[in-house]
Amino acid sequence: MSSNVPIAHGDITAPTPQNTPLTHAPIAAGLSRPTVPDISEDNEPAEDESEDPAQITGAQAAMLGLVQGRLADLVGKSSGYIESLPIDVKKSVEALKGVQVKQNELQNQYKRECLELEKKYLELQLPLYERRNAIISGAAQATAEEIEAGSQASLKDDPLYTPLPSDEAAPAAIPEFWLTALRNHVGLSEIITERDASALKNLTDIRLSYLPSDSPKPGFKISFIFSPNDYFENDVLDKTYLYQEEVGYTGDFVYDHAIGTEIKWKEDKDLTKEFEIKKQRNKNTNRTRLVRKARPTDSFFNFFSPPVPPPENEDEEKLEMDYQIGEDLKEKIIPRAIDYFTGKALEYDVMDEDEDDFDELDDEDEDGQFDDEDSDSEVELPRRRGPPKGRGWLECRCCQP
Amino acid sequence: MSSNVPIAHGDITAPTPQNTPLTHAPIAAGLSRPTVPDISEDNEPAEDESEDPAQITGAQAAMLGLVQGRLADLVGKSSGYIESLPIDVKKSVEALKGVQVKQNELQNQYKRECLELEKKYLELQLPLYERRNAIISGAAQATAEEIEAGSQASLKDDPLYTPLPSDEAAPAAIPEFWLTALRNHVGLSEIITERDASALKNLTDIRLSYLPSDSPKPGFKISFIFSPNDYFENDVLDKTYLYQEEVGYTGDFVYDHAIGTEIKWKEDKDLTKEFEIKKQRNKNTNRTRLVRKARPTDSFFNFFSPPVPPPENEDEEKLEMDYQIGEDLKEKIIPRAIDYFTGKALEYDVMDEDEDDFDELDDEDEDGQFDDEDSDSEVELPRRRGPPKGRGWLECRCCQP
Repeated sequence: MSSNVPIAHGDITAPTPQNTPLTHAPIAAGLSRPTVPDISEDNEPAEDESEDPAQITGAQAAMLGLVQGRLADLVGKSSGYIESLPIDVKKSVEALKGVQVKQNELQNQYKRECLELEKKYLELQLPLYERRNAIISGAAQATAEEIEAGSQASLKDDPLYTPLPSDEAAPAAIPEFWLTALRNHVGLSEIITERDASALKNLTDIRLSYLPSDSPKPGFKISFIFSPNDYFENDVLDKTYLYQEEVGYTGDFVYDHAIGTEIKWKEDKDLTKEFEIKKQRNKNTNRTRLVRKARPTDSFFNFFSPPVPPPENEDEEKLEMDYQIGEDLKEKIIPRAIDYFTGKALEYDVMDEDEDDFDELDDEDEDGQFDDEDSDSEVELPRRRGPPKGRGWLECRCCQP
Repeated sequence: MSSNVPIAHGDITAPTPQNTPLTHAPIAAGLSRPTVPDISEDNEPAEDESEDPAQITGAQAAMLGLVQGRLADLVGKSSGYIESLPIDVKKSVEALKGVQVKQNELQNQYKRECLELEKKYLELQLPLYERRNAIISGAAQATAEEIEAGSQASLKDDPLYTPLPSDEAAPAAIPEFWLTALRNHVGLSEIITERDASALKNLTDIRLSYLPSDSPKPGFKISFIFSPNDYFENDVLDKTYLYQEEVGYTGDFVYDHAIGTEIKWKEDKDLTKEFEIKKQRNKNTNRTRLVRKARPTDSFFNFFSPPVPPPENEDEEKLEMDYQIGEDLKEKIIPRAIDYFTGKALEYDVMDEDEDDFDELDDEDEDGQFDDEDSDSEVELPRRRGPPKGRGWLECRCCQP
């Protein structure tokens, strides 16, 4: 294992920018994550068995009962209470709803200002992104100051790190920088096929931009910049994510839909298709011929043909995944490309993800025990959506021999 | 069920501010959630069996193997790649780390500006919070406009809602407003005992404020305002959450610790203690006497004696819960108190929470099946921390007869 990809050995340390996992907080850029449009499943075809109540497992049924009970109990309780109030008090309650409308308007205004702040800081980051790109492409040479600052950062991560000599370097492009960075993202690594990789070697930059403030829907665009290659004619592949004009219940933006650039594949180079050669016999002449049939196949480049949003499409999972990849590119990979290239970010991502799984196993056990006890004395908070529970024991062990 | 607590019946509708669940996005106020300090568990006493590798279940062991394999594979891959690069390319990589340091500084500056924006909008909300409080306390009468706006909001939620006559009302305090709101929060409802409820009937407001910009650590304060009551002398109970000065790896604030007001309990009224009467016999005189022994008990008011942060305290779960309650008060209950009072917010909270549980059951099944297939073609994205997957089928069914 390289010395610049340190794995902490479980000492008790205060969190610092160096030892705090990358994905601790859900939103790297401070703006709440947009939400996904609701998909109702009432009209789903009956053959979708996962939706069939008859297919509910015992655990699910128990949980369903619990929720129904709690809902009926709690919602019922508050409703009954309100109905029992004198008319003037009911009017006070109604007036509070009116005040809440004004509070919501302010909250929406706040969210829009958050988006503007996000845009402002992207502008401020752009010169650094350009500098990064110049170093990656070999258009500019690394300065002694940059190398020195990088060595200092490496030493902060790992006190045993051996710094490089920080004299100025000759311009030296970093081969396959973006392909390596993408492949060090847990989710993307699994949708990039070997065939995709050959094309992605020509990926020279990934850039973020926002739609102009006067565009009908707000949103952002991720641009993949390619050098001339054997696969397609485009030099830029864009993926644009659009929000709905109206913000959601919490004042957060809601995803509307995404648009991808149409890829102009060179002949026989479409990576999103697999070709089969089939024999066909002409019924009249009885002669056979070979026919090539194309069928869709898994490929990273399907990212540029995003799924259609509901109500036309009810494959919520596909849609979620598409939005998730967009968010991860925007919030994690573009801002911290070097950490994905070196694998530093991946280390945190993997930890984070699997720790959560362990927590849930524990939670289930505990819940099972707690049910029999006095419910007054037990605390059952909603599942935490925010930061995970720090770096757990997994990390301490998996780096041991 | 009251007509103003509608439960959607699963029609396909576009998300609007009215039908989008309250907790869709993790951060209502746009600033990333602070993270919890890391707690290493290497030094834990051996009797904590949940940490003992010998206690790992089959599923955990399988997962552990998976993580170790993936880490070794992926981190190893990128590291080896970097080590194989020529010295000048290595210098380019090192320089990128140096550029990243500057990017991080900008990101930190951005986060601080987000906090200032949050403060600015709290200031803008304050007149509305004051107006809300005047209506709740009966100090002011609801205006016809407010009642009308409230009725419009209710009608948007439920077209069958019967509006109240919107002529001006006499001032009419809403009894137990804040107690009802707190009890409609899933987590808090379970830590508020019946004894606590008697005291919380005197809770007249919950207020949010930020620590001044020049205070040594940034943070926020939640103030519970009480009318004179039989339980304690204080008229305000504060809970203050402090962030560490240095922001974390992602540029998000990290919780440092919390401070609570010391409650001056009136005699025999300490709700955080239970008293036992025990007989004691004097060995010399052989006379018995009755002795009262106090022992700690569950109570909402323990919230004002927050757990000590690590490294002194390693009960991560307690600490998490304390931070979680603070966040929910700040991000959900204070901004949307009326929705908690009516139960509208609770409806979303419960849905949200339990839907997640179902998703995870599904995920596990799928993972089990996918393992046997070609891994190239499968997508396994990190667990989504952001918005949950919309409103699921649970909602469609639990409101059916």
